[in-house]
Amino acid sequence: MTEAREHLLDWLRDAHAMEQQAEQMLKAQSSRIENYPKLKARIEQHIQETLGQQQLLEGCIKRLGGSPSAVKDTMGKVMAMGQAVGGMMASDEIVKGSMASYVFEHMEIASYRTLIAAAQAVGDIETQRVCEQILGQEEAMAKWLEENLAEVTQQFLVRDETPGVTARK
Amino acid sequence: MTEAREHLLDWLRDAHAMEQQAEQMLKAQSSRIENYPKLKARIEQHIQETLGQQQLLEGCIKRLGGSPSAVKDTMGKVMAMGQAVGGMMASDEIVKGSMASYVFEHMEIASYRTLIAAAQAVGDIETQRVCEQILGQEEAMAKWLEENLAEVTQQFLVRDETPGVTARK
Repeated sequence: MTEAREHLLDWLRDAHAMEQQAEQMLKAQSSRIENYPKLKARIEQHIQETLGQQQLLEGCIKRLGGSPSAVKDTMGKVMAMGQAVGGMMASDEIVKGSMASYVFEHMEIASYRTLIAAAQAVGDIETQRVCEQILGQEEAMAKWLEENLAEVTQQFLVRDETPGVTARK
Repeated sequence: MTEAREHLLDWLRDAHAMEQQAEQMLKAQSSRIENYPKLKARIEQHIQETLGQQQLLEGCIKRLGGSPSAVKDTMGKVMAMGQAVGGMMASDEIVKGSMASYVFEHMEIASYRTLIAAAQAVGDIETQRVCEQILGQEEAMAKWLEENLAEVTQQFLVRDETPGVTARK
Protein backbone atom coordinates (compact mmCIF):
# COMPACT_ATOMS: atom_id res chain seq x y z
CA MET A 1 0.00 0.00 0.00
CA THR A 2 2.52 2.69 -1.11
CA GLU A 3 -0.18 5.09 -2.33
CA ALA A 4 -1.95 4.69 1.00
CA ARG A 5 1.22 5.66 2.89
CA GLU A 6 1.44 8.80 0.76
CA HIS A 7 -2.16 9.69 1.65
CA LEU A 8 -1.47 9.03 5.33
CA LEU A 9 1.57 11.34 5.26
CA ASP A 10 -0.39 13.98 3.36
CA TRP A 11 -3.27 13.87 5.86
CA LEU A 12 -0.83 14.09 8.78
CA ARG A 13 0.61 17.27 7.23
CA ASP A 14 -2.95 18.62 6.85
CA ALA A 15 -3.59 17.85 10.52
CA HIS A 16 -0.38 19.60 11.57
CA ALA A 17 -1.33 22.74 9.61
CA MET A 18 -4.82 22.52 11.11
CA GLU A 19 -3.41 22.45 14.66
CA GLN A 20 -1.29 25.51 13.91
CA GLN A 21 -4.44 27.24 12.72
CA ALA A 22 -6.24 26.03 15.86
CA GLU A 23 -3.50 27.57 18.00
CA GLN A 24 -3.90 30.95 16.29
CA MET A 25 -7.69 30.85 16.50
CA LEU A 26 -7.78 29.80 20.16
CA LYS A 27 -5.20 32.42 21.20
CA ALA A 28 -7.12 35.15 19.37
CA GLN A 29 -10.39 34.08 21.00
CA SER A 30 -8.95 33.80 24.49
CA SER A 31 -7.31 37.23 24.33
CA ARG A 32 -10.65 38.86 23.43
CA ILE A 33 -12.92 37.19 26.03
CA GLU A 34 -13.62 39.45 29.02
CA ASN A 35 -16.86 38.30 30.62
CA TYR A 36 -17.04 34.54 30.12
CA PRO A 37 -14.30 33.20 32.46
CA LYS A 38 -15.28 29.49 32.27
CA LEU A 39 -15.04 29.51 28.48
CA LYS A 40 -11.75 31.43 28.57
CA ALA A 41 -10.23 28.94 31.03
CA ARG A 42 -11.26 25.93 28.91
CA ILE A 43 -9.80 27.55 25.79
CA GLU A 44 -6.52 28.23 27.64
CA GLN A 45 -6.36 24.56 28.62
CA HIS A 46 -6.97 23.50 25.03
CA ILE A 47 -4.19 25.79 23.73
CA GLN A 48 -1.73 23.75 25.83
CA GLU A 49 -3.22 20.49 24.48
CA THR A 50 -2.95 21.86 20.93
CA LEU A 51 0.78 22.61 21.36
CA GLY A 52 1.34 19.03 22.53
CA GLN A 53 -0.63 17.68 19.56
CA GLN A 54 1.58 19.63 17.14
CA GLN A 55 4.65 17.88 18.64
CA LEU A 56 3.01 14.45 18.43
CA LEU A 57 2.06 14.98 14.77
CA GLU A 58 5.58 16.18 13.91
CA GLY A 59 6.89 12.94 15.39
CA CYS A 60 4.58 10.87 13.14
CA ILE A 61 5.43 12.90 10.04
CA LYS A 62 9.19 12.55 10.61
CA ARG A 63 8.88 8.80 11.31
CA LEU A 64 7.21 8.43 7.89
CA GLY A 65 10.11 10.33 6.25
CA GLY A 66 8.29 13.64 5.73
CA SER A 67 8.61 17.14 7.11
CA PRO A 68 5.77 19.26 8.47
CA SER A 69 4.56 21.96 6.14
CA ALA A 70 3.36 25.21 7.66
CA VAL A 71 1.97 26.64 4.46
CA LYS A 72 -0.49 23.96 3.35
CA ASP A 73 -3.82 25.37 2.31
CA THR A 74 -6.31 23.53 4.48
CA MET A 75 -10.03 23.78 4.88
CA GLY A 76 -9.12 24.98 8.36
CA LYS A 77 -7.63 28.17 7.04
CA VAL A 78 -10.77 28.96 5.08
CA MET A 79 -12.88 28.28 8.15
CA ALA A 80 -10.63 30.26 10.46
CA MET A 81 -10.76 33.13 8.00
CA GLY A 82 -14.54 32.86 7.93
CA GLN A 83 -14.59 33.09 11.69
CA ALA A 84 -12.14 35.99 11.80
CA VAL A 85 -14.17 38.01 9.31
CA GLY A 86 -17.64 36.91 10.37
CA GLY A 87 -17.20 36.34 14.07
CA MET A 88 -15.10 39.15 15.45
CA MET A 89 -17.11 41.81 13.66
CA ALA A 90 -20.35 40.43 15.01
CA SER A 91 -22.38 41.98 17.80
CA ASP A 92 -22.89 38.40 19.04
CA GLU A 93 -19.18 37.56 18.86
CA ILE A 94 -19.12 35.26 21.92
CA VAL A 95 -21.95 33.11 20.53
CA LYS A 96 -20.53 32.96 16.99
CA GLY A 97 -17.07 32.26 18.44
CA SER A 98 -18.36 29.38 20.56
CA MET A 99 -20.16 27.94 17.52
CA ALA A 100 -17.02 28.30 15.40
CA SER A 101 -14.87 26.55 18.02
CA TYR A 102 -17.38 23.71 18.20
CA VAL A 103 -17.35 23.38 14.42
CA PHE A 104 -13.54 23.55 14.25
CA GLU A 105 -13.32 20.78 16.87
CA HIS A 106 -15.41 18.58 14.60
CA MET A 107 -13.11 19.25 11.67
CA GLU A 108 -10.34 18.02 13.95
CA ILE A 109 -12.40 14.99 15.00
CA ALA A 110 -13.10 14.13 11.33
CA SER A 111 -9.38 14.48 10.54
CA TYR A 112 -8.26 12.16 13.33
CA ARG A 113 -10.94 9.58 12.54
CA THR A 114 -9.71 9.56 8.92
CA LEU A 115 -6.08 9.32 10.09
CA ILE A 116 -6.86 6.43 12.45
CA ALA A 117 -8.58 4.51 9.61
CA ALA A 118 -5.66 5.23 7.26
CA ALA A 119 -3.03 4.24 9.86
CA GLN A 120 -4.93 0.99 10.43
CA ALA A 121 -5.05 0.34 6.68
CA VAL A 122 -1.27 0.66 6.30
CA GLY A 123 -0.46 -1.00 9.64
CA ASP A 124 1.15 2.06 11.24
CA ILE A 125 0.37 1.23 14.87
CA GLU A 126 2.26 4.20 16.35
CA THR A 127 0.41 6.80 14.23
CA GLN A 128 -2.88 5.08 15.07
CA ARG A 129 -2.06 5.26 18.80
CA VAL A 130 -1.03 8.94 18.64
CA CYS A 131 -4.17 9.91 16.69
CA GLU A 132 -6.41 8.02 19.11
CA GLN A 133 -4.79 9.94 21.98
CA ILE A 134 -5.35 13.30 20.25
CA LEU A 135 -8.91 12.31 19.25
CA GLY A 136 -9.74 11.84 22.94
CA GLN A 137 -8.67 15.42 23.70
CA GLU A 138 -10.63 16.83 20.76
CA GLU A 139 -13.78 14.91 21.69
CA ALA A 140 -13.53 16.13 25.29
CA MET A 141 -13.20 19.75 24.10
CA ALA A 142 -16.10 19.32 21.64
CA LYS A 143 -18.31 17.84 24.38
CA TRP A 144 -17.45 20.70 26.74
CA LEU A 145 -18.28 23.30 24.09
CA GLU A 146 -21.54 21.52 23.22
CA GLU A 147 -22.65 21.49 26.85
CA ASN A 148 -21.57 25.13 27.31
CA LEU A 149 -23.25 26.50 24.16
CA ALA A 150 -26.75 26.92 25.64
CA GLU A 151 -25.30 28.59 28.76
CA VAL A 152 -23.17 31.06 26.76
CA THR A 153 -26.15 31.87 24.52
CA GLN A 154 -28.48 32.57 27.44
CA GLN A 155 -25.82 34.56 29.37
CA PHE A 156 -25.21 36.62 26.24
CA LEU A 157 -28.93 37.36 25.80
CA VAL A 158 -29.33 38.40 29.44
CA ARG A 159 -26.19 40.61 29.38
CA ASP A 160 -27.34 42.16 26.11
CA GLU A 161 -30.60 43.29 27.79
CA THR A 162 -28.70 44.77 30.75
CA PRO A 163 -27.74 48.45 30.42
CA GLY A 164 -24.07 49.31 30.96
CA VAL A 165 -22.86 45.72 30.54
CA THR A 166 -20.78 44.30 27.70
CA ALA A 167 -22.33 41.17 26.20
CA ARG A 168 -20.38 40.39 23.07
CA LYS A 169 -17.02 39.33 24.52
CA MET B 1 -36.47 40.70 26.15
CA THR B 2 -36.92 42.64 22.90
CA GLU B 3 -33.22 42.52 21.99
CA ALA B 4 -33.29 38.77 22.55
CA ARG B 5 -36.20 38.37 20.13
CA GLU B 6 -34.18 40.29 17.52
CA HIS B 7 -31.25 37.92 18.01
CA LEU B 8 -33.56 34.91 17.76
CA LEU B 9 -35.02 36.18 14.49
CA ASP B 10 -31.53 36.98 13.18
CA TRP B 11 -30.25 33.50 14.04
CA LEU B 12 -33.32 31.89 12.42
CA ARG B 13 -32.49 33.79 9.22
CA ASP B 14 -28.87 32.57 9.48
CA ALA B 15 -30.15 29.01 9.86
CA HIS B 16 -32.44 29.37 6.84
CA ALA B 17 -29.54 30.62 4.69
CA MET B 18 -27.40 27.78 6.05
CA GLU B 19 -29.99 25.18 5.00
CA GLN B 20 -30.11 26.65 1.51
CA GLN B 21 -26.33 26.32 1.38
CA ALA B 22 -26.65 22.76 2.70
CA GLU B 23 -29.08 21.94 -0.10
CA GLN B 24 -26.62 23.21 -2.74
CA MET B 25 -23.68 21.38 -1.18
CA LEU B 26 -25.51 18.08 -0.76
CA LYS B 27 -26.91 18.15 -4.30
CA ALA B 28 -23.45 18.89 -5.73
CA GLN B 29 -21.92 16.04 -3.72
CA SER B 30 -24.60 13.53 -4.56
CA SER B 31 -24.40 14.23 -8.29
CA ARG B 32 -20.63 13.56 -8.28
CA ILE B 33 -20.53 10.31 -6.29
CA GLU B 34 -20.18 7.20 -8.51
CA ASN B 35 -18.71 4.42 -6.42
CA TYR B 36 -19.97 4.93 -2.87
CA PRO B 37 -23.70 4.06 -3.12
CA LYS B 38 -24.41 3.94 0.65
CA LEU B 39 -23.08 7.47 1.12
CA LYS B 40 -24.95 8.72 -1.93
CA ALA B 41 -28.24 7.24 -0.67
CA ARG B 42 -27.83 8.81 2.79
CA ILE B 43 -27.09 12.21 1.21
CA GLU B 44 -30.20 11.91 -1.00
CA GLN B 45 -32.29 11.22 2.11
CA HIS B 46 -30.80 14.24 3.87
CA ILE B 47 -31.56 16.52 0.89
CA GLN B 48 -35.26 15.74 1.43
CA GLU B 49 -34.91 16.45 5.17
CA THR B 50 -33.13 19.73 4.37
CA LEU B 51 -36.00 20.91 2.14
CA GLY B 52 -38.45 20.21 4.96
CA GLN B 53 -36.25 22.10 7.43
CA GLN B 54 -36.25 25.17 5.16
CA GLN B 55 -40.06 25.18 5.28
CA LEU B 56 -40.11 24.79 9.07
CA LEU B 57 -37.66 27.67 9.53
CA GLU B 58 -39.65 29.90 7.17
CA GLY B 59 -42.69 29.23 9.35
CA CYS B 60 -40.81 30.37 12.49
CA ILE B 61 -39.40 33.47 10.78
CA LYS B 62 -42.82 34.55 9.51
CA ARG B 63 -44.45 33.92 12.90
CA LEU B 64 -41.89 36.31 14.44
CA GLY B 65 -42.76 38.95 11.83
CA GLY B 66 -39.67 38.55 9.64
CA SER B 67 -38.99 37.31 6.16
CA PRO B 68 -36.32 34.78 5.18
CA SER B 69 -33.26 36.29 3.56
CA ALA B 70 -31.50 34.28 0.90
CA VAL B 71 -28.50 36.54 0.62
CA LYS B 72 -27.22 36.58 4.20
CA ASP B 73 -23.50 36.05 4.42
CA THR B 74 -23.11 33.09 6.73
CA MET B 75 -20.13 31.13 7.91
CA GLY B 76 -21.76 28.32 5.97
CA LYS B 77 -21.11 30.01 2.67
CA VAL B 78 -17.43 30.42 3.50
CA MET B 79 -17.24 26.77 4.51
CA ALA B 80 -19.15 25.56 1.47
CA MET B 81 -16.84 27.63 -0.72
CA GLY B 82 -13.86 26.10 1.05
CA GLN B 83 -15.21 22.67 0.30
CA ALA B 84 -16.03 23.50 -3.31
CA VAL B 85 -12.54 24.82 -3.96
CA GLY B 86 -10.58 22.44 -1.76
CA GLY B 87 -12.66 19.28 -1.94
CA MET B 88 -13.75 18.81 -5.53
CA MET B 89 -10.27 19.48 -6.89
CA ALA B 90 -8.73 16.96 -4.54
CA SER B 91 -7.52 13.49 -5.55
CA ASP B 92 -9.14 12.29 -2.30
CA GLU B 93 -12.43 14.08 -3.01
CA ILE B 94 -14.69 11.43 -1.41
CA VAL B 95 -12.75 11.57 1.88
CA LYS B 96 -12.56 15.38 1.98
CA GLY B 97 -16.24 15.56 1.01
CA SER B 98 -17.27 13.20 3.82
CA MET B 99 -15.22 15.23 6.29
CA ALA B 100 -16.75 18.49 5.03
CA SER B 101 -20.28 17.10 5.35
CA TYR B 102 -19.55 15.96 8.90
CA VAL B 103 -18.19 19.42 9.77
CA PHE B 104 -21.15 21.18 8.13
CA GLU B 105 -23.56 19.00 10.13
CA HIS B 106 -21.89 20.25 13.30
CA MET B 107 -22.30 23.85 12.23
CA GLU B 108 -25.99 23.02 11.87
CA ILE B 109 -26.03 21.30 15.28
CA ALA B 110 -24.36 24.34 16.90
CA SER B 111 -26.90 26.64 15.22
CA TYR B 112 -29.92 24.67 16.44
CA ARG B 113 -28.53 24.34 19.97
CA THR B 114 -28.09 28.12 20.03
CA LEU B 115 -31.60 28.62 18.62
CA ILE B 116 -33.15 26.27 21.19
CA ALA B 117 -31.44 28.15 24.04
CA ALA B 118 -32.57 31.51 22.58
CA ALA B 119 -36.14 30.31 22.02
CA GLN B 120 -36.24 29.10 25.64
CA ALA B 121 -34.91 32.46 26.84
CA VAL B 122 -37.69 34.41 25.10
CA GLY B 123 -40.39 31.79 25.77
CA ASP B 124 -41.04 30.93 22.11
CA ILE B 125 -42.20 27.34 22.60
CA GLU B 126 -43.06 26.69 18.95
CA THR B 127 -39.60 27.74 17.67
CA GLN B 128 -38.01 25.63 20.40
CA ARG B 129 -40.08 22.59 19.34
CA VAL B 130 -39.27 23.07 15.63
CA CYS B 131 -35.54 23.46 16.31
CA GLU B 132 -35.49 20.37 18.54
CA GLN B 133 -37.14 18.41 15.74
CA ILE B 134 -34.57 19.61 13.18
CA LEU B 135 -31.70 19.03 15.64
CA GLY B 136 -32.70 15.36 15.83
CA GLN B 137 -32.35 15.01 12.06
CA GLU B 138 -28.97 16.77 12.02
CA GLU B 139 -27.62 14.65 14.87
CA ALA B 140 -28.74 11.46 13.11
CA MET B 141 -26.99 12.56 9.90
CA ALA B 142 -23.84 13.55 11.82
CA LYS B 143 -23.77 10.18 13.61
CA TRP B 144 -24.18 8.30 10.33
CA LEU B 145 -21.34 10.27 8.72
CA GLU B 146 -19.11 9.73 11.75
CA GLU B 147 -19.67 5.99 11.66
CA ASN B 148 -19.18 5.88 7.90
CA LEU B 149 -15.97 7.97 7.80
CA ALA B 150 -13.55 5.12 8.59
CA GLU B 151 -15.26 2.86 6.03
CA VAL B 152 -15.13 5.48 3.26
CA THR B 153 -11.47 6.20 4.07
CA GLN B 154 -10.45 2.54 3.91
CA GLN B 155 -12.53 1.86 0.75
CA PHE B 156 -10.89 4.88 -0.87
CA LEU B 157 -7.37 3.67 0.01
CA VAL B 158 -8.06 0.16 -1.33
CA ARG B 159 -9.64 1.46 -4.56
CA ASP B 160 -6.74 3.89 -4.99
CA GLU B 161 -4.28 0.94 -4.98
CA THR B 162 -6.37 -1.00 -7.53
CA PRO B 163 -5.44 -0.42 -11.20
CA GLY B 164 -8.27 0.63 -13.52
CA VAL B 165 -10.62 1.65 -10.70
CA THR B 166 -11.79 5.16 -9.80
CA ALA B 167 -11.28 5.96 -6.11
CA ARG B 168 -11.93 9.67 -5.73
CA LYS B 169 -15.70 9.82 -6.33
